[in-house]
Amino acid sequence: MGPVTGQRLAIAPLTAAAFAPFGEVIEAEGRASYPINAGTARRFDDLARVDVGAAGGKPLVGLCRAEPIALPFRVRLMERHPLGSQAFMPLSPTPFLVVVAPPSPAPRAEAIRAFRSNGRQGINYARGTWHHPLLALERTSDFLILDRGGEGENCEEVPVEDLGLLIGA
Amino acid sequence: MGPVTGQRLAIAPLTAAAFAPFGEVIEAEGRASYPINAGTARRFDDLARVDVGAAGGKPLVGLCRAEPIALPFRVRLMERHPLGSQAFMPLSPTPFLVVVAPPSPAPRAEAIRAFRSNGRQGINYARGTWHHPLLALERTSDFLILDRGGEGENCEEVPVEDLGLLIGA
Repeated sequence: MGPVTGQRLAIAPLTAAAFAPFGEVIEAEGRASYPINAGTARRFDDLARVDVGAAGGKPLVGLCRAEPIALPFRVRLMERHPLGSQAFMPLSPTPFLVVVAPPSPAPRAEAIRAFRSNGRQGINYARGTWHHPLLALERTSDFLILDRGGEGENCEEVPVEDLGLLIGA
Repeated sequence: MGPVTGQRLAIAPLTAAAFAPFGEVIEAEGRASYPINAGTARRFDDLARVDVGAAGGKPLVGLCRAEPIALPFRVRLMERHPLGSQAFMPLSPTPFLVVVAPPSPAPRAEAIRAFRSNGRQGINYARGTWHHPLLALERTSDFLILDRGGEGENCEEVPVEDLGLLIGA
């Protein structure tokens, strides 16, 4: 292989504010909570807008076991789900990469953002948000997935290798 | 305090088959899966029947941070959600206790079961399944919760201390 070349895409820390155009960050830190179970637990509520779209959609719970990537990482494709939201929550404290672009006919290079979660955060992609498939870091990682099941074609993929984007140093 | 007395309720390992009358075990082990993301990940699908009930219900994503209990543990109350299912998924590999009874006007002592998860399992209580509030073990534990939001009274609690049940040795 030749040297790794391309336009470098910096990785920003994942925060609720920075991620707001793309969906929600699922995390306890900084969120309102209330005591439950006679004070032995606290509940942080309504952390993701689960969207299963029109009639015929239902919430689908799955698990995903992902192999880690190495950085720098070349962005070759993006996908989106036109019929519903999709959430990923890590099942052990471990960071992952989130690469997104807002809804549009196709992701534009200058609109693509990369975030690194802090290890305790999950994310929920809003319906139609372009995103790279799951990018685990450091180790094989398990995630809970919450998305839409039911009739209809709910995955659209586009090749974006021509954009020449490389994530991370 | 005096000695701990009561009818001992043995703790069984949590398995999908044993838990079937109460809902689903959310786990990868032993489940069908398929490769995704060009073979860099596997997805295990449709692991819980998310039930948000009649019109006006919506899936609610929350987090819960629970203090651990010590064993033996006296069962003082049970609750159920008449309008929807409720799932708990641990966010680090850690076991927890699940105490359940099938739907009925009130939980009967002989119908109550206690399970210990293996650390990688979550559970989804079917609508109407009696269950004890979350019982973390060993350490303060975070869980993702997926249940029903929306109008209507969706929590029914009953005191069961009179049953005299003690969980664990």
